[in-house]
Amino acid sequence: MSGVMTSDRISLKRGAGGPAMRRLIDESFLRAFATDPQIPAGIIGVSAMGDSGAVRIGDRWLVMTTDSHVIQPLFFAGGDIGRLAMAGPINDLAMMGATEALALTCSVILEDGFPRADLDRILESMRRTCREAAAIVVAGDTKVIGKADFGGIVITTTGVGFATPLVRDAGLRPGDRIVVTGTLGDHGMAVMATRHDLLLDSDLQSDVAPINTLIRGALDAAAGAITAMKAPTRGGVSAAVHEMAAKSRVGVILDETALPVRESVRGVAELVGIEPLLIANEGKALLGVRADAVDRVLAAVRGHPLGRDAAVIGVCTEDRPGTVILDTGSGCRLLTEPEAELLPRIC
Amino acid sequence: MSGVMTSDRISLKRGAGGPAMRRLIDESFLRAFATDPQIPAGIIGVSAMGDSGAVRIGDRWLVMTTDSHVIQPLFFAGGDIGRLAMAGPINDLAMMGATEALALTCSVILEDGFPRADLDRILESMRRTCREAAAIVVAGDTKVIGKADFGGIVITTTGVGFATPLVRDAGLRPGDRIVVTGTLGDHGMAVMATRHDLLLDSDLQSDVAPINTLIRGALDAAAGAITAMKAPTRGGVSAAVHEMAAKSRVGVILDETALPVRESVRGVAELVGIEPLLIANEGKALLGVRADAVDRVLAAVRGHPLGRDAAVIGVCTEDRPGTVILDTGSGCRLLTEPEAELLPRIC
Repeated sequence: MSGVMTSDRISLKRGAGGPAMRRLIDESFLRAFATDPQIPAGIIGVSAMGDSGAVRIGDRWLVMTTDSHVIQPLFFAGGDIGRLAMAGPINDLAMMGATEALALTCSVILEDGFPRADLDRILESMRRTCREAAAIVVAGDTKVIGKADFGGIVITTTGVGFATPLVRDAGLRPGDRIVVTGTLGDHGMAVMATRHDLLLDSDLQSDVAPINTLIRGALDAAAGAITAMKAPTRGGVSAAVHEMAAKSRVGVILDETALPVRESVRGVAELVGIEPLLIANEGKALLGVRADAVDRVLAAVRGHPLGRDAAVIGVCTEDRPGTVILDTGSGCRLLTEPEAELLPRIC
Repeated sequence: MSGVMTSDRISLKRGAGGPAMRRLIDESFLRAFATDPQIPAGIIGVSAMGDSGAVRIGDRWLVMTTDSHVIQPLFFAGGDIGRLAMAGPINDLAMMGATEALALTCSVILEDGFPRADLDRILESMRRTCREAAAIVVAGDTKVIGKADFGGIVITTTGVGFATPLVRDAGLRPGDRIVVTGTLGDHGMAVMATRHDLLLDSDLQSDVAPINTLIRGALDAAAGAITAMKAPTRGGVSAAVHEMAAKSRVGVILDETALPVRESVRGVAELVGIEPLLIANEGKALLGVRADAVDRVLAAVRGHPLGRDAAVIGVCTEDRPGTVILDTGSGCRLLTEPEAELLPRIC
């Protein structure tokens, strides 16, 4: 067994995306909750545990998602922790097919001495983001704690909605195409650049945005032909595609030459030596689409203001289930899943 | 204006229950969310903002509640943070009439170095508490942060359920009786005693427990006659009754001689100089009940293992809306609402 498996203390390494974190969740949380055989009356099915889940109530799927947002700095080029904390659950719900009539809760933990003006600015940003998505906050909680090393504020948001239809991240089939709804790495690189004063005159901006209306358009354009969806947040497209491939038991070949990446992102990514495929996005989705529907879906996504740069970036194969191959144009290599988050505290 | 109103920084004083905290919530959060006129299609009504809310979806009320749990010590006589974090939302949902088919999410923030064995013990406690309530956890998130002054773990839980019927804390009417479902102050005193090694040979134990089945029994016994419900958690019965009275625009006269308080709780409360009325409970409810139904409700509550000590402790009046009078048996005095939590980090 590895050191991670036998450790008797939680380490920061587990706090980021990737296999180490997933092992912690698998070991502790799944054992506690996911295998409980007792399903209450009225709830017919429960999806696999993760940061999103679904319960079948009557003839509908109620989907739920939760995430705690810890980020430094709180305000960055193109967004802030408030926008992030609202777009996060809205997009996670959309990834399961719940794109309308979304209700959210919001729990805020503040460090003693947190500036009131910053709180007001964050709340205003949360309010605006909700309006864009036609989502509402129905309940909230606030706690103030002593000094802490988390940047002054942690926002935990939870969202619920009804999925029509329920979509999962595990439905890819051989032959399906992988569509990304826009450019890669904008969020992670914008936060990184803000943090290290690398913005200069760059137009680098986070892509953080609610994309539920974009996803609704895609679902309406190709009912039944979208086989899987996932938001490429922590760990970027690489982590998300790895997880989709593993859960769906297919291989994925990504076409590196097709990856949409802004020049400004590519520039900073090269400067800090990180592949755009590994960088977090906060306003993008990966869609698994049946080959015969990919043109319709692409047209629908590109017709949305947040989807103009959408592209087909990969194809699913029967071979090597769970692995992701990167076709560079001049050869292929195995894309490995990052063990720990390269850019911590980014979303 | 007071110092609290004009302060440009959030202070710990606001982290507890009571008027200071409510002002912060009123000023910042309500302004951001509650008055938003844009209600999405499919959501017909939104309740007033607080740590619980309800949206009308179709012909049903979906209720949601959220709370972040910060407590020291994590393990105390009669419970732990895990049981608290699960019983909290389950009971808050029950207070709105949602007692069955409850779905929860759970977001855990861990301090770097948190003992793995403690996490496992907490998770096992969460799992057991869910089983007692027939509630299920459908999604979770974990973050590990650096060193922090919050006791090693913060658990934010959010719950959803369908209310049948929807009950609020604002429905008291003159003549209604106030029923408490059991003894007062057990949770706060047990945590306090554990913290300061005052347990000695005492049988002092937290009352932390899910009471959704108890509430279901009360609702079934007197459909329509339960006019308001509230959990007397932070700030105890005093804070809860004050809030119910203010929202319902009634006065409340509490009968001090009728308050059920265990000897062990009374002992420690006297030792530390705090009234049991002000101490947090985590397995109790306050019910507003129409006078003609109070016997039926009391019988139903007392028939539940967690409701044996239920008592009628007050009556609502038209006079002095929003105020709470304590009838000591030898005279009456105005019960003032505590400005700040007397026992911080208790739930």
